[in-house]
Amino acid sequence: MPLPAIDFWFDFSSPYSYIANEWVDAVAARHGRTVRRHAILLGVTFQAAELRPPVAFPLKGVYSLRDFARSARFEGLPYLPPADFPIPTQNAARVFWWLQATQGEAAAARWATAGLRGVFAQQLPLHQPAGLASLAIAQGLEPDAVQAVCADPQWKARLKQANDDAIAGGVFGAPFFKLDGEPFWGNDRRAQIERWLAQGPF
Amino acid sequence: MPLPAIDFWFDFSSPYSYIANEWVDAVAARHGRTVRRHAILLGVTFQAAELRPPVAFPLKGVYSLRDFARSARFEGLPYLPPADFPIPTQNAARVFWWLQATQGEAAAARWATAGLRGVFAQQLPLHQPAGLASLAIAQGLEPDAVQAVCADPQWKARLKQANDDAIAGGVFGAPFFKLDGEPFWGNDRRAQIERWLAQGPF
Repeated sequence: MPLPAIDFWFDFSSPYSYIANEWVDAVAARHGRTVRRHAILLGVTFQAAELRPPVAFPLKGVYSLRDFARSARFEGLPYLPPADFPIPTQNAARVFWWLQATQGEAAAARWATAGLRGVFAQQLPLHQPAGLASLAIAQGLEPDAVQAVCADPQWKARLKQANDDAIAGGVFGAPFFKLDGEPFWGNDRRAQIERWLAQGPF
Repeated sequence: MPLPAIDFWFDFSSPYSYIANEWVDAVAARHGRTVRRHAILLGVTFQAAELRPPVAFPLKGVYSLRDFARSARFEGLPYLPPADFPIPTQNAARVFWWLQATQGEAAAARWATAGLRGVFAQQLPLHQPAGLASLAIAQGLEPDAVQAVCADPQWKARLKQANDDAIAGGVFGAPFFKLDGEPFWGNDRRAQIERWLAQGPF
C-alpha cells in the first residue's frame, strides 16, 4: 500500500511557495511519497485568519523582501520577482484546477512549477492575459481554451472550493503542508518535514 | 582582531527565542564569534511594526501553539510553557540590562538563559514577584536588589532605549539576529545563519 501523499498548498504569488515547490517533489520521492498540490488564494486565507501579507507591514516589509531573495539564493534558485508584487493569481489557479481535473496531478504540477518559475524567476506577468497566454503556449495548451477556463463558473467554483477546504483544514498561509495529518507552515519547515518523513512523528 | 559579535534580540515570553537561545552560543563559538544579547519587549516592536503575536490570530494561533512545542522537540528541548502565555516581561528585561551594565555580558546571558528556560521548560511565573525572586535566588542575586532594579527609572529607561534601538535597527520580532549587518528573523533562520558564518555572504 503506498504511503500517504504530502498535501502542499501554494499561491502563484507566494515567493516562499516558489522556493518550496522546487524541493518538495524530490524530498517526497526520497521517502516514497508523492505530492498533491492545492492552488489557493492567499488573500482569501489571510482574510479568514485576519492576516495581511508580510510586505504590508512597516519594518517587516523591508525585511521580507530581503529574505525572499536570500532564501531563494540559499536554495540555489534564481530570483527575479515581478515589479508589482504581489499579483492577483485567481486565473492561474483556476487553470491549475482545470488541468488537475481534466489531465491529472502531473499536468497540474507542471503548470504550478512553470507558473511559479515564471512569476519569480522571469518576471512573467501571470496576472495579465498576455502572461497567461504565454505560459499556456509554453505548456502546449491552447491560449483560448485557457482564457475560457478563467471565465468559466465551474472553475471559479472549483477554486472557491479549494480555498474553503484549505481554511476548513486550518490552512492560513503558503506554502503549507500536511503530512500524515500534521500541519507544517512555511518553506522554513523543510528540516522538520524531512525528519518526519525519515523517522515519523517527533 | 576578533570577528564581530552576533547580535541577538529576544523577549522572555518568546518561545522561539527560548529555542534559539539554546543553540546561538554554540553555533557562534564554532565560527569564532561571540553573542551580544538584547532583551526587548515584543509588544513594543509589534506596535511599531503594526503586528500582533501569532497566537492572536484565528487558524494561525492554533497552529503556532503546536509549532512552538514541535520546534522545541525538534531541537531536543523540554517544553512546558506558562498557562497564561504570553506573559509581561518588562521586569525580567530590566534585570537583564542591569546585569549587563554592572556585571557584564556573561552574567546577563546567564540570566537570559535561566529566565527563558524557567518560562518555557518549568512554567516559572517570571511576571510575578515570586517567580522573579525565585530566579534571582537561583542566580545568586539578592531578591530585594532585583526588585528594586525593576522599579528604578534608570533601568526602565535602559530597557526603553533597547526597544527604541531595536526598532531603529529594523527589529520587529524575536528572535532576531544581526550578523555582519545582515538581519535574520526567526529561530528557523538557523541554517542560513550557519551558512553565513561558514562561507560569508550568499
